[in-house]
Amino acid sequence: MKKFYMSAAQRGQPPGSAVYTGDKVDVPVRVRMINYNETMIEELEPAAVEETFVAPDPAVVNWINIDGLNDADAIAKTGKFLKLHSLVVEDIVHTHQRPKLEDLEESLFLVVRMLSLNPETQDVQSEQISFILREGNVLVTFQEAPGDVFEGVRERLRKAQGRVRHKGADYLLYALMDAVIDHYFKVLESFGERIEVIETELMDDPYPELLQQIYSIKRELLYIRKSVWPLREAVGALERNESDLIQESTRLYLRDLYDHAIQVIDTVESFRDMLSGVQDLYLSSLGNKTNQVMKVLTIIATIFIPITFIAGIYGMNFEIIPELHWRYGYAAVWAVMIIMVAIMLAYFRRKKWF
Amino acid sequence: MKKFYMSAAQRGQPPGSAVYTGDKVDVPVRVRMINYNETMIEELEPAAVEETFVAPDPAVVNWINIDGLNDADAIAKTGKFLKLHSLVVEDIVHTHQRPKLEDLEESLFLVVRMLSLNPETQDVQSEQISFILREGNVLVTFQEAPGDVFEGVRERLRKAQGRVRHKGADYLLYALMDAVIDHYFKVLESFGERIEVIETELMDDPYPELLQQIYSIKRELLYIRKSVWPLREAVGALERNESDLIQESTRLYLRDLYDHAIQVIDTVESFRDMLSGVQDLYLSSLGNKTNQVMKVLTIIATIFIPITFIAGIYGMNFEIIPELHWRYGYAAVWAVMIIMVAIMLAYFRRKKWF
Amino acid sequence: MKKFYMSAAQRGQPPGSAVYTGDKVDVPVRVRMINYNETMIEELEPAAVEETFVAPDPAVVNWINIDGLNDADAIAKTGKFLKLHSLVVEDIVHTHQRPKLEDLEESLFLVVRMLSLNPETQDVQSEQISFILREGNVLVTFQEAPGDVFEGVRERLRKAQGRVRHKGADYLLYALMDAVIDHYFKVLESFGERIEVIETELMDDPYPELLQQIYSIKRELLYIRKSVWPLREAVGALERNESDLIQESTRLYLRDLYDHAIQVIDTVESFRDMLSGVQDLYLSSLGNKTNQVMKVLTIIATIFIPITFIAGIYGMNFEIIPELHWRYGYAAVWAVMIIMVAIMLAYFRRKKWF
Amino acid sequence: MKKFYMSAAQRGQPPGSAVYTGDKVDVPVRVRMINYNETMIEELEPAAVEETFVAPDPAVVNWINIDGLNDADAIAKTGKFLKLHSLVVEDIVHTHQRPKLEDLEESLFLVVRMLSLNPETQDVQSEQISFILREGNVLVTFQEAPGDVFEGVRERLRKAQGRVRHKGADYLLYALMDAVIDHYFKVLESFGERIEVIETELMDDPYPELLQQIYSIKRELLYIRKSVWPLREAVGALERNESDLIQESTRLYLRDLYDHAIQVIDTVESFRDMLSGVQDLYLSSLGNKTNQVMKVLTIIATIFIPITFIAGIYGMNFEIIPELHWRYGYAAVWAVMIIMVAIMLAYFRRKKWF
Amino acid sequence: MKKFYMSAAQRGQPPGSAVYTGDKVDVPVRVRMINYNETMIEELEPAAVEETFVAPDPAVVNWINIDGLNDADAIAKTGKFLKLHSLVVEDIVHTHQRPKLEDLEESLFLVVRMLSLNPETQDVQSEQISFILREGNVLVTFQEAPGDVFEGVRERLRKAQGRVRHKGADYLLYALMDAVIDHYFKVLESFGERIEVIETELMDDPYPELLQQIYSIKRELLYIRKSVWPLREAVGALERNESDLIQESTRLYLRDLYDHAIQVIDTVESFRDMLSGVQDLYLSSLGNKTNQVMKVLTIIATIFIPITFIAGIYGMNFEIIPELHWRYGYAAVWAVMIIMVAIMLAYFRRKKWF
Repeated sequence: MKKFYMSAAQRGQPPGSAVYTGDKVDVPVRVRMINYNETMIEELEPAAVEETFVAPDPAVVNWINIDGLNDADAIAKTGKFLKLHSLVVEDIVHTHQRPKLEDLEESLFLVVRMLSLNPETQDVQSEQISFILREGNVLVTFQEAPGDVFEGVRERLRKAQGRVRHKGADYLLYALMDAVIDHYFKVLESFGERIEVIETELMDDPYPELLQQIYSIKRELLYIRKSVWPLREAVGALERNESDLIQESTRLYLRDLYDHAIQVIDTVESFRDMLSGVQDLYLSSLGNKTNQVMKVLTIIATIFIPITFIAGIYGMNFEIIPELHWRYGYAAVWAVMIIMVAIMLAYFRRKKWF
Repeated sequence: MKKFYMSAAQRGQPPGSAVYTGDKVDVPVRVRMINYNETMIEELEPAAVEETFVAPDPAVVNWINIDGLNDADAIAKTGKFLKLHSLVVEDIVHTHQRPKLEDLEESLFLVVRMLSLNPETQDVQSEQISFILREGNVLVTFQEAPGDVFEGVRERLRKAQGRVRHKGADYLLYALMDAVIDHYFKVLESFGERIEVIETELMDDPYPELLQQIYSIKRELLYIRKSVWPLREAVGALERNESDLIQESTRLYLRDLYDHAIQVIDTVESFRDMLSGVQDLYLSSLGNKTNQVMKVLTIIATIFIPITFIAGIYGMNFEIIPELHWRYGYAAVWAVMIIMVAIMLAYFRRKKWF
Repeated sequence: MKKFYMSAAQRGQPPGSAVYTGDKVDVPVRVRMINYNETMIEELEPAAVEETFVAPDPAVVNWINIDGLNDADAIAKTGKFLKLHSLVVEDIVHTHQRPKLEDLEESLFLVVRMLSLNPETQDVQSEQISFILREGNVLVTFQEAPGDVFEGVRERLRKAQGRVRHKGADYLLYALMDAVIDHYFKVLESFGERIEVIETELMDDPYPELLQQIYSIKRELLYIRKSVWPLREAVGALERNESDLIQESTRLYLRDLYDHAIQVIDTVESFRDMLSGVQDLYLSSLGNKTNQVMKVLTIIATIFIPITFIAGIYGMNFEIIPELHWRYGYAAVWAVMIIMVAIMLAYFRRKKWF
Repeated sequence: MKKFYMSAAQRGQPPGSAVYTGDKVDVPVRVRMINYNETMIEELEPAAVEETFVAPDPAVVNWINIDGLNDADAIAKTGKFLKLHSLVVEDIVHTHQRPKLEDLEESLFLVVRMLSLNPETQDVQSEQISFILREGNVLVTFQEAPGDVFEGVRERLRKAQGRVRHKGADYLLYALMDAVIDHYFKVLESFGERIEVIETELMDDPYPELLQQIYSIKRELLYIRKSVWPLREAVGALERNESDLIQESTRLYLRDLYDHAIQVIDTVESFRDMLSGVQDLYLSSLGNKTNQVMKVLTIIATIFIPITFIAGIYGMNFEIIPELHWRYGYAAVWAVMIIMVAIMLAYFRRKKWF
Repeated sequence: MKKFYMSAAQRGQPPGSAVYTGDKVDVPVRVRMINYNETMIEELEPAAVEETFVAPDPAVVNWINIDGLNDADAIAKTGKFLKLHSLVVEDIVHTHQRPKLEDLEESLFLVVRMLSLNPETQDVQSEQISFILREGNVLVTFQEAPGDVFEGVRERLRKAQGRVRHKGADYLLYALMDAVIDHYFKVLESFGERIEVIETELMDDPYPELLQQIYSIKRELLYIRKSVWPLREAVGALERNESDLIQESTRLYLRDLYDHAIQVIDTVESFRDMLSGVQDLYLSSLGNKTNQVMKVLTIIATIFIPITFIAGIYGMNFEIIPELHWRYGYAAVWAVMIIMVAIMLAYFRRKKWF
């Protein structure tokens, strides 16, 4: 079951303790750093964040990516080095945060959830990603585990594709967020396909397992929805934010990002509506099938019960049953029975039962 | 299945790449230009946008219409010639945009969806239309494919009907948007007729296929709804926009347009409510039918099972069954049976089962 | 089917063409004028609006009522005479407007829908009424057809009842609107009675036609609702309007009008809720009835099928069936059967099936 | 049926006519006056309002309570004496007002509905109460009929309990409103108990009448809800009102009153949710019962129909049926039947049908 | 049944009477006091609040905790000693308050509900907790009964863990509120587990009791929801409050608290959605089961009724039934029956009934 709430581990803690509360506990901390500007790019993998820079060079964008939040000491040191408020450090390691933006004066702190599909089970997986945009063209990103949706951005940085190498750390933040939201669409597309399959099978022949599938998609959408509504708020706050850390020319891109976030919500809501419709359709076709079954039973019973009764009559052993001795008694009984069946069939035909 | 989300093609792209993401990929770019004022009108078909004008003459309205977004080069050149921000060019070719208005200082950028009915399948088709209203009385429109709802406006321009020839490019934008929204009503009218047909058939004789029809209309309405809510926002923003590009005298018309957009939403919501009602009606009449079928079965079974039992009794081969030897035994059995049937019928009649 | 959208006629028109789009096409234009102040009243019926006045006398209230919108020429002339913007003229003849208030500087333009019950079918009929309140104590009203809810106001004017003769054209507007909204209550009262009848019959004996009645009332309420929500907005705008055309002393009355409009909405919403409740009740009582029918069937079948089987056993023709030759075999079989039936009945009694 | 709309009587009236529209038409007007301050209290019963005071003494709180609104003349005189605007007088006698607060400069006009339970039928009764708080420490209350929820306040006044004798007319207004809202809780408590009873019976043994009870409670709640939402608005407006008539020290009490009004709404909404839940529970348990009935039928039929068929086989009169002449034929048939029944029972047991 | 409304005891009271209205009536008042700063901590248990301090020392945080609200005298004295407005004292003892924050100038008054699980029945219990944050670093908390969720905070105070000893009374308020809200998550986690169990059992084998469990969880959630929505408002008001009692450095923590309150609401709403889904699933699987039962019955009946009829035919005693004398008559009848059964089975197989 997907967690809809903070874990027990998190609850026992006093506020202010920076202990990781997620489930990726055996991931070692890994620091990667990409420094670039229009003319150069270098990728480093320092042992710890403290080795990344002394004073950042504003002419060069520094992107520090940290995978693995499990080593409390390392995270604490990182927080101290980056001069982060202890509550921010807590928010980074206490995963299951609501997506949000916090303006911390000299830096912006953005927490979102990255969705992906488990390639095997096709379940939705999610991971918390924290962004810290600092003065001096520095962007720090924290992830729970290696493996992310940022590879495309790295590729573009290396190959100097698109605008990203010509812009600052704020544009890099946009590009990474864009990659995160694009991944939401990928996840939703897979849901779209599953709904389509269910629709087709429903039209064809509804079977009970479809309902559990519908329910399970509904549940996953509920989970996505919980991430996506606050995501929209956070991106909206980012767009409207008046911090100097965001350049004017980047705002237009952030508005675009906001449009995408709304489109994600629209799609999730449409899917929910469609699933309701699909479920109604299932229930009605179930009602239809029961009705069909009932009709078959009723037709058979209504035709045969009366004539069986007649057969029963002439199976009685009374001494005196005059009809039994008629010459054409047997034929007459058959005739009566056939007439009765014909009347029944005509009745059902008029009622359009078959 | 109608796309409720951006296509996979769009997702792989780095932000900033202006590659067409729709499905009308084999449409060549076609540029048409209509220049007019109160006294003259000329229709040109230049090979490329670059040939349309050097400096627009503010005394003449220039309407440049571009069909086909598939040729990335041509679109890029067009964007450069019109001095459009690269994000705007992307929005034009990345169809599946949410309808929106963007105020780009020297120009207004409006994206909407044009709905039409596939004349064969009666499905809803949609196409993205982008409007750029620029200084110098210039309106540029981008469409995914030829064939549009603007023919009426062109006709009025040619024949100098109505006010359109006496007004500027902002009024032309209004007239074209009015044509787009009027087409929504045409689409909705066809839905209204389909709902009416379903209603009539429901009252008459509900059959299972009606439900799939209801579901399919619901789905199409969901799709329209997704276009229409942001359309209202965009038209509202256009009305309230304080740009110099919109003359004061045009605002009254835009308010009218806004009223129409609200009326479209009202109608869509009413249709949704009506479909819910129709579906409830279907389900209840299904329940009624099952109830009817059950009653037929129960009446037949309740009448014949007991008397068949009596016939069974006197079909037994016991040596000593005194009744079998009575003179009027057979007649007495018939009498008993007829009385039992009469009681049953009276019972059902009192219960109003038939 | 009630129209929920603009008619096809309206769509083909270029914006700005003042052609009547309603269905009351054979109504000739009829102009009536009532001039009054505290001391005098005169009723005139001029051939055309142009003959009504040259310069209105502000000391006298002029109420010009125009029935019939079908004669485009006459309407156009009227519009010109009253110096109405062409869009206003269009709104007057394009019926199916959303109720709205427009402040046109020297005049106020209010469009609402007047509801009435078709006296024969008890269906809801609706007609668009436009009010133009102008400087110089002039109120112009446009109706689609003769026959209105204003007769009571005319009567009060003639007999100098109430306050209306002591007040200006703005109060007359209030009095007429009050008559319109009061008529909504009359229509709603008839719905209330129909719902009450349905409720009583449901409690008594639910029959399938009730559902169609519920659906049809729902549909009519949907239609009323579409008129009534924007009506509230329009009346609210009228109350808050700061035009000099509305005297301060009239505002208190308009607030009262607004209260009434909200009460109409409250009532419509309550009726919708009640209809949902009634429908749920119908469906559940249908379920109950099916359950009852099933129980009858099951009781009969469960009692007779086993004993019929026993009768069948002793109807077999095996050479050796010892029981057949017992002296009290027949009586014993009856005893067994009666015991079985008694057990069954006890079982059903314990299950409270009857 | 509870009235959800203005009565027919009210509709025929011209606006401005102060004729009582409620159903308590045979109640004579009765005026009671209580004058008090910290040191004294006197209770008077003048014949008419005109006799109550010439100029109120601001050092003494004057509470004038008028029961019975049916005497148009008396009410008109009262209105004139109290210098009430004619619309206010109309609002007082036109019961079925939406609860509201009106700030009339020198006085505050508050209309609410008082709910009570009919002690016999346990139905909700309601009565309109109007409050007029005037300068000079005067509070006038109008009721449709004698018998109210104010007796507790009168008692406290007489016995000088609580704060009420130490405070002004604004606190008296609060104390009376508090009594009105407290009575809402009493009414709701009775609903809570009825819902609790229904719940318990549902868990025990659902029977069809429960549904009508649920529907009837729903309907009453709908009625309460219509009074209670605008009541909250009115009390909120009273709290925020900046009139000098309300002393600063009373505002804290009004905030408390507002909290109570919200709590009433919360409770009504919770009850609605609970009733929906109860209704769902009823419907599902109905489905369960039908399922149970079906299972009994199916088990009996499935067990006996096949073995009855076998008995039928050996009841046939063919000349040559070898089995009939077997020595252990009869026993073999029994054996076969018992085996078949055992298989059936095992099948049903595995399906967990019993 | 959980109380959704004020008790009868509360209603009879005049406003302003401070009599405890909860159900924990036999709890003696117990006062505990913890005084601490960075360097020292002392725990006292004075006999009454009056003994706690004369003038608080602002350098030391004083946390006075009072358990038991039943002794009206003691509470009244406490209120007087703490100089609380009588309405505040009433709010403290009138439990069933809506959670709220009131800014009383020199102090902040916060009322919330503390939830916990009854360890035996797993029902939700709730208790009202009132906080009064006063000048001079004083925090007073009132509880209905001993036993609370504050033990963790006390432990941290004693052991000087976390930040709490380094901060003022406002941080202590935050820490206590954090403990309260953390406990909501504990309660919700238990609900999450119960829903998960229900889901699993539903997928497996739905049985009727699940529905009552679903309903009972729904009801408890309804109860939690009533506490939690106003809790969010109260915490939001606390965060935005501009009182000097809250230090700037504490605000960031309060924002965190607010995030948690929203997360509680999100979780409650998600659970409600999930329960709806689970209930739909239950109802559909019930429909499926009825359908299955019907199919079994129909298959058995449809196969055996016709062949039983044939057996009945040849059980008739007509003198002349030629078939009875055929040599292979009996075998032929068997053949016909087997063919009929085969046809039926093929029909059901094609219909996918088994």
